[in-house]
Amino acid sequence: MEIQLFKKPQGVKIIEGFPGFGLIGSITTEFLVDHLKCELIGRFLFEDQQSTVLIHKGKITEPLGIFYNQKHNIVIIHSISAAQGIEWKAADIVMDVAKQLKAKEIISLEGVGSAVPTTSSNIFYYTNVEKNRKNLEGLGTKLLQDGIIMGVTSAVMLKTKTPLTCFFAETHSALPDSKAAAKVIETLDKYLNLKVDPNPLLKQAQKFEDKLKSMMQQSQDAQEMQEKKQLSYVG
Amino acid sequence: MEIQLFKKPQGVKIIEGFPGFGLIGSITTEFLVDHLKCELIGRFLFEDQQSTVLIHKGKITEPLGIFYNQKHNIVIIHSISAAQGIEWKAADIVMDVAKQLKAKEIISLEGVGSAVPTTSSNIFYYTNVEKNRKNLEGLGTKLLQDGIIMGVTSAVMLKTKTPLTCFFAETHSALPDSKAAAKVIETLDKYLNLKVDPNPLLKQAQKFEDKLKSMMQQSQDAQEMQEKKQLSYVG
Amino acid sequence: MEIQLFKKPQGVKIIEGFPGFGLIGSITTEFLVDHLKCELIGRFLFEDQQSTVLIHKGKITEPLGIFYNQKHNIVIIHSISAAQGIEWKAADIVMDVAKQLKAKEIISLEGVGSAVPTTSSNIFYYTNVEKNRKNLEGLGTKLLQDGIIMGVTSAVMLKTKTPLTCFFAETHSALPDSKAAAKVIETLDKYLNLKVDPNPLLKQAQKFEDKLKSMMQQSQDAQEMQEKKQLSYVG
Amino acid sequence: MEIQLFKKPQGVKIIEGFPGFGLIGSITTEFLVDHLKCELIGRFLFEDQQSTVLIHKGKITEPLGIFYNQKHNIVIIHSISAAQGIEWKAADIVMDVAKQLKAKEIISLEGVGSAVPTTSSNIFYYTNVEKNRKNLEGLGTKLLQDGIIMGVTSAVMLKTKTPLTCFFAETHSALPDSKAAAKVIETLDKYLNLKVDPNPLLKQAQKFEDKLKSMMQQSQDAQEMQEKKQLSYVG
Amino acid sequence: MEIQLFKKPQGVKIIEGFPGFGLIGSITTEFLVDHLKCELIGRFLFEDQQSTVLIHKGKITEPLGIFYNQKHNIVIIHSISAAQGIEWKAADIVMDVAKQLKAKEIISLEGVGSAVPTTSSNIFYYTNVEKNRKNLEGLGTKLLQDGIIMGVTSAVMLKTKTPLTCFFAETHSALPDSKAAAKVIETLDKYLNLKVDPNPLLKQAQKFEDKLKSMMQQSQDAQEMQEKKQLSYVG
Repeated sequence: MEIQLFKKPQGVKIIEGFPGFGLIGSITTEFLVDHLKCELIGRFLFEDQQSTVLIHKGKITEPLGIFYNQKHNIVIIHSISAAQGIEWKAADIVMDVAKQLKAKEIISLEGVGSAVPTTSSNIFYYTNVEKNRKNLEGLGTKLLQDGIIMGVTSAVMLKTKTPLTCFFAETHSALPDSKAAAKVIETLDKYLNLKVDPNPLLKQAQKFEDKLKSMMQQSQDAQEMQEKKQLSYVG
Repeated sequence: MEIQLFKKPQGVKIIEGFPGFGLIGSITTEFLVDHLKCELIGRFLFEDQQSTVLIHKGKITEPLGIFYNQKHNIVIIHSISAAQGIEWKAADIVMDVAKQLKAKEIISLEGVGSAVPTTSSNIFYYTNVEKNRKNLEGLGTKLLQDGIIMGVTSAVMLKTKTPLTCFFAETHSALPDSKAAAKVIETLDKYLNLKVDPNPLLKQAQKFEDKLKSMMQQSQDAQEMQEKKQLSYVG
Repeated sequence: MEIQLFKKPQGVKIIEGFPGFGLIGSITTEFLVDHLKCELIGRFLFEDQQSTVLIHKGKITEPLGIFYNQKHNIVIIHSISAAQGIEWKAADIVMDVAKQLKAKEIISLEGVGSAVPTTSSNIFYYTNVEKNRKNLEGLGTKLLQDGIIMGVTSAVMLKTKTPLTCFFAETHSALPDSKAAAKVIETLDKYLNLKVDPNPLLKQAQKFEDKLKSMMQQSQDAQEMQEKKQLSYVG
Repeated sequence: MEIQLFKKPQGVKIIEGFPGFGLIGSITTEFLVDHLKCELIGRFLFEDQQSTVLIHKGKITEPLGIFYNQKHNIVIIHSISAAQGIEWKAADIVMDVAKQLKAKEIISLEGVGSAVPTTSSNIFYYTNVEKNRKNLEGLGTKLLQDGIIMGVTSAVMLKTKTPLTCFFAETHSALPDSKAAAKVIETLDKYLNLKVDPNPLLKQAQKFEDKLKSMMQQSQDAQEMQEKKQLSYVG
Repeated sequence: MEIQLFKKPQGVKIIEGFPGFGLIGSITTEFLVDHLKCELIGRFLFEDQQSTVLIHKGKITEPLGIFYNQKHNIVIIHSISAAQGIEWKAADIVMDVAKQLKAKEIISLEGVGSAVPTTSSNIFYYTNVEKNRKNLEGLGTKLLQDGIIMGVTSAVMLKTKTPLTCFFAETHSALPDSKAAAKVIETLDKYLNLKVDPNPLLKQAQKFEDKLKSMMQQSQDAQEMQEKKQLSYVG
């Protein structure tokens, strides 16, 4: 299937968030889409993956939705499709959108595992634009010196030639981590001058986390029911 | 293999039912095909799945049969082929039939898992036609606010541009759930003004359930025998 | 690989027997090939399956042999290749042979699982030629009212347009069932007027069963040896 | 990859030995290549299998080497690549070489499982040339009356139209069986009039067996180390 | 994806190091790239493998980097991508680079398992250039008489026609073995007259080992977190 792009704003900055450690990418972009009241300008379906639809407030949540915020000329790629096994393809999608929209920058959001359990989450950055480092360090983020990145972001890092900024939120488990996501939003707010009220962030992120957790639970239950059925019915 | 369509009535409403939670889709469409005395106008074989034939009253039950009821200009896609792993392909078949028959509406029937065990089954709806909501709520169904849909219906929801109405029957297990299916039939009767006598519904649905259960058991036994044989014979 | 057909008699009746429940199809067709002293007129190799050769009386038994009996103008497709996973392809082979030989009828032999343990085996039939029912019931077979058919026969049932008669022998386990096979032979004898002496049937079938059992055992031993070797040798 | 044939002697007899029960084929052909001081005239690489190189006396042992002995106009296909899963392809290679070299005969060497543990190994034969039976029985070998053959030889038996002679050494386990291989060499010596001194055979075969056993052990250790590494390193 | 080669120095010697036993190839080539202050002239991405990025000193470490040292006209292929399952493809890449750069020699570095635990590591060699043996033995390395080689080096050995020298470091486990790698570097230094100070080698190699170990640990943790997440989230 082709990427569907209904509208092609030019010279945008692209923020991409796929599920990963702590679901950082998905929680953060979901908050942004919701908060910045974006418009859906594109979508993609991974038809070689199991079909699942998430319904929220009576509407379909796009498995991979491409949203546009005109005020800041920002495009948000928000995905809730499991990234495992489709990293390279997903990266190609991000890069294809970047090309079609002549993107000035790609901003990738990802969790990074932390060996040492800490109570607060650090935000690290990576950039392929040397002169952007000073700017990024002014935001209170630190260069990721050593680490291993997996997921869609890793494939984007290896392939894109577009100016790229990655924000890595340190997470301590693979469970949805709304606190770490809130920190990413704070950083993004400063970086892109989005002027979002930082106060309700954590609370709202908590709500997202709860919603995602309950969806995850439902999905798991569904999976289990499905498997039982599979055992007992051969159509 | 291509879809075989022997007859192409135009402007129809399509009701599709594949196995899923509680086998809602299959039980419901089987009842309709039986009750409305439909005519077989098409079929499809999933040749990348194991071959299994269900014989009923000395006749082959089509794994995926396409039936036509002239009186109400309704086409019923009744499938007893396991939907696991073929959701996208099955959705493409539904959409292809819709296109060939210039369908005015697709009506999808699916079970949806319920976390809380209740004795009665609610019917929820989803529609991609905003103005149809009032009508649907008049039937006593409620908009599915939050949930996760899997199976063929989820793929249809993500892909079709035809007006779509989904009825989700709340089921509490993956076992065949004739009570929930009977509720779907009641709702469909009101929605499409089929004027079927609602009294024998539950009883009849119970019979379907028993038949399907015994078929499932036979199929499982067959599978087990087959596996034993597999171990002891290499031809 | 293509079907090899060295000779193309026309207007034949085709009897096909693949392994299945109780190995009914293979035992029966092996008996017929032996008893009617047929001539090999074709063969097929499933090259996507493991290669195994059965040697009998110093000669190779064709994994799938196509035999011709001129006296009754009958073609027998006798297969000892495991049918699991190749049902559709095998059905295509049967149908291709039927087409090349302008077959008047396909006769499929298959075992069908019986839930209730009984001492005797019933023979059931299915036919796609309505007017043939009376004739078939005159043979002492009963229409299969309800059941689930798997294996090559199920795929033939779903695909062929040639007049089709299926004989299902009720078997109680997946082990080779020579008694049930003997009943099938009796029925076939009456149906096709083969005039074979029914007396030595059971005895002979017992011998086939023993041979097949011992082959199965050898094959299993070979498999086990092979697996041990696999563990200890990487070439 | 194509078969590499550097030299194409015509009208040869081809002896093929792949690993199988007791590694009969590989041990025997290795002895012949060594004893008859053959010249490498071809090779083949199975690139869909794991890459492994066996070094012997500081030289690479070809995974599948094609050797020529001019004196007897014999070509030896010696393979140490595991035959499991590549039987059909390997048979095609043997047949392709036979075709290119206009081979007069293919001689296949294989182990055959023995249900009854005996101290001595019998050699059985199979041939597709009826009139060669007398000759073969004069060698002290017996026609294989009933049995199941697996491996590359089974696929050659089903496909080749070249005159084919198979020697099956009865083995009692899947472990390298140098005694059985020595018996095959004795038989081959008589059959092809190779005039090899039969005295050092068993001793030499024992050495081969030891070498192969130690290689197998090394390979297994390597595999195990590799697997441990796999667990702890993701590059 | 194609091999990217930004610069094509001619007549070079190529040193290739992929992960393998004791990570010998990767540790050694990483040291060389670092020590000889090479320039990146090419890269390759294995897009059919999981995407993972290793960040070191704030920079991306190429999964497979091709480096050039002008002073010695040496090209180093340094890979940290797991070699399991991609041996043939990786060998094709090495050979393709050799062809494009008209390489005079390929030098492969690999670990070889040792059955007997020893405290010191021997370096063995293999070469396809007979007359180079004397030279190689002057370095204190011994011809590998008997052994089994796996990994990328084995596939290069079977396929390349370029003059090839392999150095095998005896390792006693699959864990990163910096001592063995240091021995390889010493040997390479003598062989290629690199004039590197041998004193800090072991210390430095130890550091590499620690870094790789910690990366491995991180990667493993990441993998485990990912798997947990996988269980609990279906997007």
